Amino acid sequence: MTPATSLFTPVEADLRLLADNLKQLVGNRHPILFAAAEHLFGAGGKRIRPAIVLLISRATMLEQDITPRHRRLAEITEMIHTASLVHDDVVDESDVRRGVPTVHSLFGNRIAILAGDFLFAQSSWYLANLDNLEVVKLLSEVIMDLATGEIQQGLNRFDTSISIETYLQKSYYKTASLIANSSKAAGLLSEVSRETVEHLYSYGRHFGIAFQIVDDILDFTSTTDTLGKPVGSDLKSGNLTAPVLFALAQKPSLEVLIEREFAQEGDLEQALALIQDSQGIQQARELAAHHAKLAIEHLAVLPPSESHQALINIAEYTLSRLY
Amino acid sequence: MTPATSLFTPVEADLRLLADNLKQLVGNRHPILFAAAEHLFGAGGKRIRPAIVLLISRATMLEQDITPRHRRLAEITEMIHTASLVHDDVVDESDVRRGVPTVHSLFGNRIAILAGDFLFAQSSWYLANLDNLEVVKLLSEVIMDLATGEIQQGLNRFDTSISIETYLQKSYYKTASLIANSSKAAGLLSEVSRETVEHLYSYGRHFGIAFQIVDDILDFTSTTDTLGKPVGSDLKSGNLTAPVLFALAQKPSLEVLIEREFAQEGDLEQALALIQDSQGIQQARELAAHHAKLAIEHLAVLPPSESHQALINIAEYTLSRLY
Repeated sequence: MTPATSLFTPVEADLRLLADNLKQLVGNRHPILFAAAEHLFGAGGKRIRPAIVLLISRATMLEQDITPRHRRLAEITEMIHTASLVHDDVVDESDVRRGVPTVHSLFGNRIAILAGDFLFAQSSWYLANLDNLEVVKLLSEVIMDLATGEIQQGLNRFDTSISIETYLQKSYYKTASLIANSSKAAGLLSEVSRETVEHLYSYGRHFGIAFQIVDDILDFTSTTDTLGKPVGSDLKSGNLTAPVLFALAQKPSLEVLIEREFAQEGDLEQALALIQDSQGIQQARELAAHHAKLAIEHLAVLPPSESHQALINIAEYTLSRLY
Repeated sequence: MTPATSLFTPVEADLRLLADNLKQLVGNRHPILFAAAEHLFGAGGKRIRPAIVLLISRATMLEQDITPRHRRLAEITEMIHTASLVHDDVVDESDVRRGVPTVHSLFGNRIAILAGDFLFAQSSWYLANLDNLEVVKLLSEVIMDLATGEIQQGLNRFDTSISIETYLQKSYYKTASLIANSSKAAGLLSEVSRETVEHLYSYGRHFGIAFQIVDDILDFTSTTDTLGKPVGSDLKSGNLTAPVLFALAQKPSLEVLIEREFAQEGDLEQALALIQDSQGIQQARELAAHHAKLAIEHLAVLPPSESHQALINIAEYTLSRLY
């Protein structure tokens, strides 16, 4: 077992059930999607989003077992995430994700677009059948945020004038919104107090931002093997993340390289060297640590439990991936 | 004014308001989508779907004015339809629709996929905010049906063994489901009886099927100018519609041409001639007339009114397009 999955011990059995259910839910209505579903929900996804929903469900239902609606919420969360990945891969023309071929490279654009549409549609349908209008609204907002984040990222490509605030907002749309709103929804299904619900939202929001910053740092500090894609891919495609934005303030020559979109031989390598030579990565680490700390503070509202502790550990583990 | 729009007289002012609102709703959150929205909701769409929702709303609210929720439902209906067109155009790589360049040809695949996702997401969000769980469920089912229909159509390309029943089922998914379920939803918002709600659903279902059959016949009998795309486009792409399926029973040589996917010079022209020479188009006309008649019968449940009459006229007009 990898360090990442052992963090999920309190919901390990729940996650196994979820993986089986997801394959069935998607494959059942569409034999053609069955292959895609096997591929999507079988591939070594980290399942961190449904794990958090299930852990919050367990941490807020200490006296009873979690309900089928909690489980369905976790499934919906993973479905929405997967749908957005499938479309992102078409949009970005990525052939590989986490070292595994993408749906669009395996089955073509047509199936990838339709599979994404179907997953979004199916998640909306299951959502409506949770029979809780507030939860429906929260998760519909997430689907809108995902499209908004992707559009913003597209618009800001190679734009060296964007601020850290703009970057954080985009990170909220693309990553934190789903975790924050599904955390909040899990609390709503457990019928916890309004105050607790808002703390769960904030846990998800800060954790999601920390998670995204860490991911963005790893694009510079990890290896091609671990990433399953070339180091510096984000930078190359013009997606300017925290380390780059911090580095830009210290290395004026970086701006020129980015603005000409690495048109000249050696531009990308030079840019990567400038970032490594700056405080950018360190400052990004501190920003991630700040958000992880805030996330953990918002958990104080929950009574002590194994699941509560797991939620803390996940936030800490996220940072530890950097070292 | 064209004959088609004069049919909408009782809701003409409503439709003008709807067009303005749609441009604002979509453009507001996203400047980038503003251009796409202008293009989508400005282009000479027939707006038949929101017109039916508005007419049913008026026909079931004779004593009072229709509510903002009825209007929002009509907007959502057009948004869902537009989202599916945008993705269909990417999937089918169409450059022109109704003589107007498609979003994907104007703005590229990236924006087209994201604009479609955003429209689907936004319609789910507005849907949730109608605060009626039954309506949310009905329209979520529609979004799933649209993806299902498109997948089925893709799978059945050039398959000469499909039955008229399979064709009708696909037509329900692709076209009739949206009209049927939004007609039903309009009745629910007006709080009519369960019995009336089901008749409204059946009106929409039969009308939608008739509408699709007529569209499929026009692909053979209209002109390139009127269609805004070449005559026989469906057949060429392997989409076997009612006239083809009926013709196949009478012209065995048609099967060979289709199964080799018109690989040889003159195959498509020969196939078109065989269909023209068969009873296929006439039999498809009769099938459309049958469904239009059933649609009108289901309206008998509504009290007489100008809007009720308009709903009858629209079903009759749909058939008249064939002559």
